[in-house]
Order: sequence, then C-alpha cells, then structure tokens
Amino acid sequence: MKTVDILLTHALVLTMDGQMNQYNPGAVAVTGDSIVAAGPEAEIKKEYSGKETIDCGGKVLMPGLVNAHTHVPMTLLRGLADDLRLDVWLMGYMMPVEREFVTPEFVRLGTLLACAEQIRSGVTTFNDMYYFEEDVAKAAAQAGMRAVCGQTVMKFPAPDAEAYEDSFDMARDFIKRWKDHPLIVPAVAPHAPYTCTEEILRETAELAREFDVPLHTHLAETAFEVENIRREHEMPVIPYVKKQGLLEAKVIAAHCVHIDTGEMRTLLHAGAGVSHNPSSNLKLASGFAPVMKMLEAGLKVGIGTDGPASNNDLDMFEEVRLAAFIAKAVSNDPTSLPAPTALTMATRLGAQALHLGHLTGSLTPGLRADLILVDISPLHNSPSFKRSQDNAYAQIVYAGKSTDVSDVMVNGKWLMRERRLLTVNEDELLAQAADIAKKVDSFLIAREQSVLSKLIALGGSMEQEAFEVQVKVKITDGRSIVQALKRPEIEIVRYRHYDQHDTYFAFDDPLQGRLRYREDDFLDEKGAVTTTRPRLTLLGQKREDSFAHDVLLSRSRFFAPAAQSLRFYREYFKPKVETSITKDRERWLIKFKDTEFFVNVDEMTEPALGHFVEIKSRTWSRKDAEHKAALTTELLALLGLAHSETVTSDYIEVVKSIG
Amino acid sequence: MKTVDILLTHALVLTMDGQMNQYNPGAVAVTGDSIVAAGPEAEIKKEYSGKETIDCGGKVLMPGLVNAHTHVPMTLLRGLADDLRLDVWLMGYMMPVEREFVTPEFVRLGTLLACAEQIRSGVTTFNDMYYFEEDVAKAAAQAGMRAVCGQTVMKFPAPDAEAYEDSFDMARDFIKRWKDHPLIVPAVAPHAPYTCTEEILRETAELAREFDVPLHTHLAETAFEVENIRREHEMPVIPYVKKQGLLEAKVIAAHCVHIDTGEMRTLLHAGAGVSHNPSSNLKLASGFAPVMKMLEAGLKVGIGTDGPASNNDLDMFEEVRLAAFIAKAVSNDPTSLPAPTALTMATRLGAQALHLGHLTGSLTPGLRADLILVDISPLHNSPSFKRSQDNAYAQIVYAGKSTDVSDVMVNGKWLMRERRLLTVNEDELLAQAADIAKKVDSFLIAREQSVLSKLIALGGSMEQEAFEVQVKVKITDGRSIVQALKRPEIEIVRYRHYDQHDTYFAFDDPLQGRLRYREDDFLDEKGAVTTTRPRLTLLGQKREDSFAHDVLLSRSRFFAPAAQSLRFYREYFKPKVETSITKDRERWLIKFKDTEFFVNVDEMTEPALGHFVEIKSRTWSRKDAEHKAALTTELLALLGLAHSETVTSDYIEVVKSIG
Repeated sequence: MKTVDILLTHALVLTMDGQMNQYNPGAVAVTGDSIVAAGPEAEIKKEYSGKETIDCGGKVLMPGLVNAHTHVPMTLLRGLADDLRLDVWLMGYMMPVEREFVTPEFVRLGTLLACAEQIRSGVTTFNDMYYFEEDVAKAAAQAGMRAVCGQTVMKFPAPDAEAYEDSFDMARDFIKRWKDHPLIVPAVAPHAPYTCTEEILRETAELAREFDVPLHTHLAETAFEVENIRREHEMPVIPYVKKQGLLEAKVIAAHCVHIDTGEMRTLLHAGAGVSHNPSSNLKLASGFAPVMKMLEAGLKVGIGTDGPASNNDLDMFEEVRLAAFIAKAVSNDPTSLPAPTALTMATRLGAQALHLGHLTGSLTPGLRADLILVDISPLHNSPSFKRSQDNAYAQIVYAGKSTDVSDVMVNGKWLMRERRLLTVNEDELLAQAADIAKKVDSFLIAREQSVLSKLIALGGSMEQEAFEVQVKVKITDGRSIVQALKRPEIEIVRYRHYDQHDTYFAFDDPLQGRLRYREDDFLDEKGAVTTTRPRLTLLGQKREDSFAHDVLLSRSRFFAPAAQSLRFYREYFKPKVETSITKDRERWLIKFKDTEFFVNVDEMTEPALGHFVEIKSRTWSRKDAEHKAALTTELLALLGLAHSETVTSDYIEVVKSIG
Repeated sequence: MKTVDILLTHALVLTMDGQMNQYNPGAVAVTGDSIVAAGPEAEIKKEYSGKETIDCGGKVLMPGLVNAHTHVPMTLLRGLADDLRLDVWLMGYMMPVEREFVTPEFVRLGTLLACAEQIRSGVTTFNDMYYFEEDVAKAAAQAGMRAVCGQTVMKFPAPDAEAYEDSFDMARDFIKRWKDHPLIVPAVAPHAPYTCTEEILRETAELAREFDVPLHTHLAETAFEVENIRREHEMPVIPYVKKQGLLEAKVIAAHCVHIDTGEMRTLLHAGAGVSHNPSSNLKLASGFAPVMKMLEAGLKVGIGTDGPASNNDLDMFEEVRLAAFIAKAVSNDPTSLPAPTALTMATRLGAQALHLGHLTGSLTPGLRADLILVDISPLHNSPSFKRSQDNAYAQIVYAGKSTDVSDVMVNGKWLMRERRLLTVNEDELLAQAADIAKKVDSFLIAREQSVLSKLIALGGSMEQEAFEVQVKVKITDGRSIVQALKRPEIEIVRYRHYDQHDTYFAFDDPLQGRLRYREDDFLDEKGAVTTTRPRLTLLGQKREDSFAHDVLLSRSRFFAPAAQSLRFYREYFKPKVETSITKDRERWLIKFKDTEFFVNVDEMTEPALGHFVEIKSRTWSRKDAEHKAALTTELLALLGLAHSETVTSDYIEVVKSIG
C-alpha cells in the first residue's frame, strides 16, 4: 500500500490519454505536483491510500482544459466594441484604448480577472500573447495557473515599447528570468507576419531557439493577410515565415484559417502546434479553419478562445462545442469532429500544440496534476446515457456548461473547491475593473463627441494646415486660362492632372465640421491613371475673413493620413450624410511676383456642374494674407477673370445648394 | 397615482420594442397578467405605486426569450446518440426508441423537464411539435409557460397514432379543447413535406384556418429534401407547399435553410413566420440558413433550439450568440446580424414569427407580463461599458450565459425567483428521468448486442425466409447450361439478367451472422441498366443439413427492406470487416416435374473468380426438402453437371478462402 497526498474517488474518470481510457467508478492518485495513478476505483484503492481522500460524488474527473490562444488582459476591454469590421475594431477602438490605458497594472488586473474566469470554467493552462507579458506571468503564477506567456514583438510602437528593439529586449530578459518556473513557460510572440519585419521574424525565432522556449504568433488568420503576403512576397504565409526561419522555433500558430494541405505538411514537419479559435473566427468573420484537414494531416490542433474582446469570454466549453458544430456544417458531414475528438483537442492535443505534452493534457501517471471536476447531473444535462463510452464526451461537449465545473487543481494545488476560488479575490478584482471601465467609457465618450478627437485617436502623423488665401471663379471652360498661364509674368513650377474623387461626411452637429476622404487619380498625357493618393481632411466651419473680390481667408483644416479605406472611415465615423463629388483637375504651381500660388482648373464631372478656377496660397500672418489677397486680385485680372462670377462656397456647398 | 400589482425598479430595462427603448435606471409596472407601463424609473415611480415593489438590483429587465422551434419531450433523449448522420440518428436511434418509449407519461415528464430547463435559461414562450401534444400542453400549462403546441400529423405510423387520420382527429379535438387557454395556443403540425402526403398538407391547413390557429412545420431543412421535392414535383419546397394551400394558414416554418429570395417573398406575402435553428443546423450539418436575406426581405425570423436531442440543450443564450456568429462568418462581414438584431429575433421577432406579437415579445404596455431578470455583473461578463446603448445588447448576446438569468415571470406570475423554480419540482423530475434513461439504455444495449435486433429496430416489413434447398457447381462458362435449359423437360417461367453488387458486413462475434447489402442492376438486352433493387439480408451461420451431391438445406435468412443507403447501414451497424462482390447473373425461374426452381448462371466479375451454376428451391418441411434435393440432383444431370465440382460455400466464403 503506497501513501499519496490526495486520492480522488467515486468519479467518472475521463483520462483523455492516448487510449481514451475511461473508468467508472474511477479514481486518481496525486502526490506533490503530479499524478501517480489513474484507474478503476477498486484497483486504485487497493494500491494507494491517500493522506486525504476526496469523494467526487460521481462527477466527471478529467484533465483541465487548455486554452491554446488568448490575450488575457483584454478581459478589461470585453464588450467595448462589437459588430465592427476588424480594422475599425482594431484601429478605431482597441489600439487607441490600449495606447491610452495599457500599463503593467492594467495587465495585472486583466490577467487576474481572466484567471478567475478561466479557473471557474475549468481551464488550467492557457497560451497568452500581450504587452508587458512579464506582468501576465506574475499574475498567472499568483493565481496558480499554468501558462505559456508570449511577450509581443512587432514593428509598430506598442504600449510597452517605443520600438521593436525595446520589446525584443523585454522578451529576452523575461525569458531569462522565468525559464525555470514551475508554472510559467516564457515565450516570445512576434505578433504576425503583417505586423513584423523579416528581421523580427528571424530574430525572435533565434531567441526562441536560444532558450528553447515556444514562439507564439498569429498565422493566416484572414484571407486579406494571405493576399497581401502573396502580393508582396509571391508565396503563401507558411512558406513565407518558413523562409524567415520562423518554423525552426517551437511554433504555436494561432488561427491558420487560410492554409492549404501543403502548408499543413510544412507545419507538421516543423513540429508546430496550431490553435483553432472558432468564436473569434466567426465573430470577426475571418472564415472557417480547415480543422478536419489539419487533424487528418496529423497536426496537433488545440482550441483557443482568443482574447475576450473578440469572443467575448474565455469559455472553453463554448469553444469546444463550436469547434465540433462548425466542422460538421462546413464539411456537410455530421460525423465530422465527433465529441471525443473535440474534447481531446481541448486537452491532450492542446497541451501538445503548446509543446507541453510532457507536462499536462491528460490524466497520465507522471504528468502534472492539472485536473477538474465537472458536474454532469444538472437539469440541462440530464438524463445521462451510458450505452457507449462516447456518451460521456458528448454530454460535456454538446450540453455541458462552464458553470458545471466545480473544482480545479493545477500542479497538485487546488485553485477552486466547490465553486469557491482559492487564489484570487473576485470582488476586489471586479471593483477595480469597474473603475477602469468607467475611465475607458469617459475616454471614448469624450472622443466620440468630436470628429477631430476620433481622427486623432486613429494615430499616425496628423497636421493642421496653415491658413490659406483663396478665390474661386465660375468659368465656361479652361482653355483661356491655360493660354493665360503662358504669359511671361507667370512662372510655372509644376503641373499635374488628376481626377479627384471627394467623399464628404457630414454629422448631426454641424460644428463638427465635414470630413473629406479624397482620392486623387493622377493621369498621364493619355489620360490613364498612374497612381492614386488617398487623403483625409477635416474641414472646419469657420471662415476667418474675406477680402476684395471674394478672396477668402480660409477655414482650419486637419489632415490625417488616409491609411484605411473609405469603408473603414464610414464605419468608424458613422456620418449622418455622405456626398460624393468627382472633378477633373488641372493644377499648376506657379510663381507670380515671387509668390507661390496654386491654380486649379476644375471640371466638375459628378455631378456635372461645369468649370471653375481656384487660386490659392498658404499664409501665416494677417499681413501676409492681406498681401496675398491683393496679389490674387491681380492674378484674377491677368487671367482675364476680373469680372467673372466668384463663388464663395466650397464645392460640397455648391453641390448641396443645387441638390 | 395609480396602484399596480408589482413595480419592478432599479433595472436596466431593455424593452426590445419597435424603438428599442432602453431605460437605465428603468422600471416596469405589472398588473394582473399584463404590463401597464415601462419607462425611466423616476417617471414610473411618479405615476405608479406597487402593492409589491421589487428592487432588481441593477440587473437587466427584458422580455422573456421566445424559443421558436423545439420538440420539448426529447429532453429525455438528450445525448442518446450524437455525431451521426441524420438518417442514422433519426431512423436508427430516435424513431426506434420513440416507438418503444413515447407515451403520454413520457411526454409529460419530458415537457416538465424542458420547462424547468427553459425557465432557468430565461425562456418564457416556446413553439413545440411532438406526439401526444395535448400532454405537452398540460405540462407546459402546469409549469406556467406560454407555448404554441403543435400536434404532429404525418403519413407514417407514429407513437400516438396508427394512421394519419388518428393524429388528425387528435389535433382537431386538442385544438377545440384548448383554443381559449390563457397560456397555450394549440396548433396542428404536419411534420414536413417529405413526411406528409399532399392530402395531409391540404387538410391540416384547412384545420388551422377553421380554428384560426398556427400551423407548425419543418420546411426546406436539408438540401436532400429540396432535391427530392424538386425531382418529384418539379418545383422548390415553398411553391410546392403553397400549391397544397399550406400557406393559407398562419404558418410557422422551422429551418428554411435552403430557400431562395423568391421563396422568401412567397413566405412574406403569406405572413408566415420562420424559426432559425443554428445549433441544430450545424450539428446535423443541414447547412447555413440565409438569415440576413430573410430579415432583409422583411420576414419575421425567430430563433429556436430545435429538440434537445439534436442540440443538445434548450439554451437560447447559446442560440442567439450562434445566430449572430454564423451570420457574420457566412456573409464574410462582422457587422452582419449585430447584437441588437440577434436579441430582437429571440424576443419580439420570435413572438411575431409565432403569430403571438399581440401577446408577448417586448415590454410594451398592454402586452402580457412575460419578463426576465438577467445578471450582467458576473465575472465572465465584467466589466460593463455604457458608451453606447448597444453595449447592453452585446453583453447579453456575446458574453451572457443562461445561468445568469435569476428571475422569470410569465403572464404576470413568477415561475422563478432568485434562481428557485416555483412551479416544477426539479429533483423529482430528475429522478424519473434517470429511471427512463436507464430503461432506454438497457433497450439499446440489448439491441446493439444483436445484428438481428438492430435490423428489427429499423422497422418496416421484415420477413424470415423459409428454408431453401440449394446446390452450387463450378463451371467453365454458362453457354452449355443455357442450351440445356431449352430441353423439353424444363419449362421456363421467367428470365432475368442483372449485375448483382453484394456488400457483406462481418462482425466481431461470428455468431451475429453476416449482413448482406445487395443491389441488383437489372439489364436489358443491350446490357443497359433498367432498374436497381436494393435488398438487405441477414445470413445466419447455421447449415441445417446436406444431401447427396452437396445439395444443402440452407441457413436461416432475414430480409429487410433496404430503404436506406449502404452508407447508412455501414454507420448504423458498424461492421468489423466489409467485403464487396460483384457478379453477372442470369436467372431463370423454371418448372421441372411440377416444381419451381431458380437456376442462376453467375460470372463473378469482382473479384474475377469464374463461373458458377446455382440451383435453388424453397422448401417448408423435411419431407419436401428431401424430395426437392432428389429433383435437384436430377436437374444437375439434365444440365450436364452430374460430375462437376460442387461448392458448398457461399460466395463470400469462396472469396475469403482465396483472399
């Protein structure tokens, strides 16, 4: 008779081991941090006596669930913004808020909240990627969970790093310090191929190899990503990252929604693990991952929740069920991804995908004691059939709820007993979270009140235009102007010809100004488009002054780089009215009496409102403005427009006045 | 100041009305069975005082959820058989068990269990279809739930009706008796176009119109159904049922997975409601319903769980989330089916789909008080953002759990208070359910132990073959036999020529016998296939006797109609080994000395094992068998086979012996 620390008896034991051994009634013996034995209750009791014996009351005793991909601190951003396109969600909401709020303290709190939620729902191991990852590690260790913690590295500035080199150094220091921790596996996380340079991919892979730690990354999440990588590098995502040496590390590849069988073989050959994230892939409309094909190819595919801001929770019961459901519908075959396979993905296969198969994922003697009790007797999961071994898996996968988990042990230590959390103070955390949410709300409410703030929140280089002196004149056509510009008093510095497509957003409150998304299609001599330049301008309502001949001192304007699509801005700014204008513009930069002016000869084509000339010049002082206004009047005369009809409205107003 | 029965205060009130009015803090006033007022707490308190005032503690107060399509008594079959194809699941498991177990008592118990589960998860109204539907109605009324109860009518015998006429009469009587019930709306439920005759569709529609009650049916659930209706009636499903007058009733159409925009318009024009059932459609791999298109067409689309045997629960929180998720992924657009729309489908739109919009579905004065309290403060749904009205819907849809529902009121009466069920005794029901599950388990375990029992469980006409006298002879080719059959002693009654494709299933236990799935491709004179006849035969292992010249008295055989595909039988019987044989057979029914014999001239083509002659005759007594054995020996001589090599094995054994 051997003595063990804890004997768990009277359980339906689902070992989830390679033979899918099931014992009912079964028992598990634990000593220290490890499983000593699992088997039929009678046999185990004959061989072992426990310092403590726990009657599991007929519940399911199984390995803890493995959440194979998440960003745990984002619990604090859960439900902040939903039903948005990925770019609007990410660049319009997540990144601006993260830039403003993410600190080590935010990360600590978000992680503890996530640990509490995950422990409650039966997760014992998770694989994370975020900023200030060492603080994730500290909080996870404090909560007693097993975790792979990947410090994010990417080419953009991040909340925890001004530049790539900073985050790379953080990753190296973090890995060095935590390499031998009993619960935490430190890792490096180059964010994704499209947010990393080739150098980052190469160097993070080298770092991971140097310390023999996993490398966690997003691969082939969206069709858009695959298209871009194909266009830029003339190959799909997996060959591209292989070329950078990424696959020489112990890779954990999140998503893999858009990969083909050749790429699966490449990943398999490299020993990479995969995390399938059904809720996130559905909610962000990333697509349907080829899960059955990946499993058939022999890949270790785990299941992950992804971050709670795109899910919106950390409920692995839901993910497992969804994985099974979606595979059936996509393959048009209800026998696809049956319950035992789905549950294996969430336990043993998931652990293997994280390169932790030697530590956790099944109730196998020698592995760490990471285990949970699940009550399968509640109303929503009754009655129970016992005809086949598969009935038990089906009960958990198809009708189980995370709230059915009653007890959780990690590394031989209880984290939850009879639904009571033992390592985190839920109430305290919730109060702190409510506090942060309030601040984030205020930040966004303030931002949303002003189009300018929303523009600033997008980040990137933004500039405020200096004042401008300008005049606009209606003409019958541009030919006489083109002739007049050849006069000796005028020196032509530059000439351009383009189609200008303007889309104006107007808002409920006219004081917000108008936002103009402008695409200039530059034309060559034959009228063919050579390049397109997108720009974003916020036009204020204020007119500063006017001079003789309706020469105006114009309104304040803010320029921002139009890195996103018109659709992005439409969904992000939610304008009340949208108006589109197209004009054919010939634009001269000229010098007249040592002063630079732009002369635009415009034909409004959509709507067809005829021809206009604009004369403009930047200015920086009242005195300079007066001088340029006078020169402008001279120029008007020189161009034969002294007595023409001036127009004091912007083009959008011209359109509106006739609309 | 008006006095009302109950004043619910301090709530985040989501009215789900046409304007999506939201009040925080809000209040709702209830008197009798109805809502008197809903609005900002301060206003409501100013106008109304309650005999009882309930502080909702900041929880969400919203209309109860509407489960738009289910089969509630199937709670008792939850998790019985999963990961199976629809036909195997339905005809191999559900229907045999239902034939054996479904009684009024089963239906009562299953319904009460379902009511308990639905009340716990915030459902206040459900739309059902099952057998003994009056017992569903009684149990639902006892539990205090609102329900549309549809008595099933179909062309097959059902657990509650030998013939269609019986169930039709039950439906009529049931509707008459329950027409004016405050909670129950009786209905008629022609099961589906493929399980009903045109007459059933016509007459059930007339019945529904006569009493102005809803008609609940399954429409266009699978592509297979649509194909069949198209082939048989040369039109899609919706036009077909329209032609039968079905759409003249107040239709509630479950599924509508495979309908086009024209069919949507037809349903809209007919005022039909639709139930979208995401879990069921995924789990049974029926497909992705065009939900966004149906909503855009203006259809009232509710959300349903379908029966708990194909889901496997009655959790509307999951369904709503899934509806939102799937719509995004299918349309490749994460802005599809946003949270407010999804939750509207589960409340107001769902009630309208059930033709109950005048009674329930939103917190609107005058409607019945069907409402729930949902706690959105738990860990898994924290923190809360309040930047936009949409945040509250998103919290419920994307991170809410059915277990967050704390209180449920139907028709002004509490069914659950602080998670305590008030109208059903959960423990008692669970004990009874466990009892039934045990019996079902035993029934299936017994059945699964015998191939013969599994064959019988499939139902349909099955016959045991009489004994047979037979002899088999190896020949070089059939030409001499064909000549010999022209002899005057032999009268040819019938001749047939066909390719016979046999697939033999063998099992672990050889005593189970072998199951043969046989397809005969009948050939015309040019060798073209005219028709195909599939048959299923269980071949026993016993050989009764043998006579001179290896004339055998053959083994017992059971025939069953092979209504299903080979694939069905493979998945249903799960053979250990499968062997396929093809032979070209010329078969003569002859008379020789006033006795009928079959003479088969076979060429085994796959595997190519040469030519054989078989002579067979049915027999019914020992004496008759001896007589026919003697005649068979005479026939052998007549055909010039007196000294040929006889073969005592069945073809499958011949194959195995050389394999």
